[in-house]
Amino acid sequence: MSMKSLHIIKIGGNVIDNSKNLHHFLKDFTGLDGYKILVHGGGKVATQLSETLGIEAKLVDGRRITDIETLRVVTMVYGGLINKNIVAQLQRFGNNAMGLTGADGNFIRTKKRPVKTIDYGFVGDIDERSIDSKGIGKLLEAGFTPVFCALTHDGEGQLLNTNADTIASALAVALSDLFETTLIYCFEKKGVLMDVNDDDSIIRDIDPVKYEELKIKQIIHSGMLPKLENAFTAIACGVKAVVIGHSDDLGELKKNKPFGTRLSKTV
Amino acid sequence: MSMKSLHIIKIGGNVIDNSKNLHHFLKDFTGLDGYKILVHGGGKVATQLSETLGIEAKLVDGRRITDIETLRVVTMVYGGLINKNIVAQLQRFGNNAMGLTGADGNFIRTKKRPVKTIDYGFVGDIDERSIDSKGIGKLLEAGFTPVFCALTHDGEGQLLNTNADTIASALAVALSDLFETTLIYCFEKKGVLMDVNDDDSIIRDIDPVKYEELKIKQIIHSGMLPKLENAFTAIACGVKAVVIGHSDDLGELKKNKPFGTRLSKTV
Repeated sequence: MSMKSLHIIKIGGNVIDNSKNLHHFLKDFTGLDGYKILVHGGGKVATQLSETLGIEAKLVDGRRITDIETLRVVTMVYGGLINKNIVAQLQRFGNNAMGLTGADGNFIRTKKRPVKTIDYGFVGDIDERSIDSKGIGKLLEAGFTPVFCALTHDGEGQLLNTNADTIASALAVALSDLFETTLIYCFEKKGVLMDVNDDDSIIRDIDPVKYEELKIKQIIHSGMLPKLENAFTAIACGVKAVVIGHSDDLGELKKNKPFGTRLSKTV
Repeated sequence: MSMKSLHIIKIGGNVIDNSKNLHHFLKDFTGLDGYKILVHGGGKVATQLSETLGIEAKLVDGRRITDIETLRVVTMVYGGLINKNIVAQLQRFGNNAMGLTGADGNFIRTKKRPVKTIDYGFVGDIDERSIDSKGIGKLLEAGFTPVFCALTHDGEGQLLNTNADTIASALAVALSDLFETTLIYCFEKKGVLMDVNDDDSIIRDIDPVKYEELKIKQIIHSGMLPKLENAFTAIACGVKAVVIGHSDDLGELKKNKPFGTRLSKTV
């Protein structure tokens, strides 16, 4: 029996902060065949609300510290405002969305990051046992589209701020046991570019061999490296393909046209 | 085949605003046998956040107007902060909670209140077709405990502020087709009192005949009348019983001891 297909799509600020982009994206997302999961990060709203409330952004080595006040803000903005508005809009398109944190249904359980030299505050780290793939699978098979925000819990009553890219990747790996899973990262470019100054120089397919070549030739710039490393790790753990592209182009998938850069074991 | 039992419990500010009360309540709620649904209103947090953000509370005839700014606040506070913290705490007690607005799963669809002499803003009115009892039933049977906040949607992408008491009552009526449903309202008193000055003078059972008697003898004070009217309407529509009591005493139910005032067709 062949496995059913699942698309897990992660969107960030460049989609969330622009209502036109978001509308366009949610329509195309709804149009995709098969099972779907949406994962969203924050965007400007959380920063703006923090500023209005006089909560100072705390950064250490460029990484945000989630103190209790910031956790309250992200719980309101990610779990409430952004998540529920996305759900209401998906419902409008006939997509039976259900907005979730990792606490809901106990679907994503993490551990508060241990304090070493830096105390990151209320941040949850995902490990290989964090995801309840069976529970999420039941929800998908019942006809619901899970919409996860960047919050998890520790199982002891504490919500934890968790990186949305990592949630998307962990979901993709865990759900690969049940579904033929494609992980899609929407970002500000149309894909991995041969020439950073030419937005149309998209590299359509990359396998591990080509990836090594591109690294040696220094075509892949440093900002993309961790993204691609993580993508190939997910693929090694069972994810069928990882696609990186712009949310505006997602509709191409439905038309069987090329969309973004597709990373997989074999081209 | 006898129907399985379902308790739908509504809590408001006096439980939500007091972390000790809330903790105690959530523990007792988890201990109840059978299927369970929690419905929660707002509390002081929404008012406080509105004040901090400089959003003026708009009241007409003592009723709150939900303008777009207020809708944003309640979406953050009800749908995010309160709802997700309740879910995380229930998970701690081993209760597999799932936090929802009416938009999630398309479970509660309402109509924006028509503008007549007063424009109430983004407020949703429930009618007899609002609740998807089958969808909610599937969720219960899959082992999840729905936690609804006071938000619904219109199916056209708009979230709407909706009275939590009304949501609880509409859920109870709709789900009576599938379950033997008891609706519990937690409020600031231990029940309906014979003597308003004596907190222990709880009337344990009221049926429609006794209700008429109590009204004639003017024992039920005016503030309680609409609550009881609505309760008997729900009972007439299939709800097995409506119980009104204090959240601190909910644990008595588990011990088969009397809890609050129980309204039903026959004593």
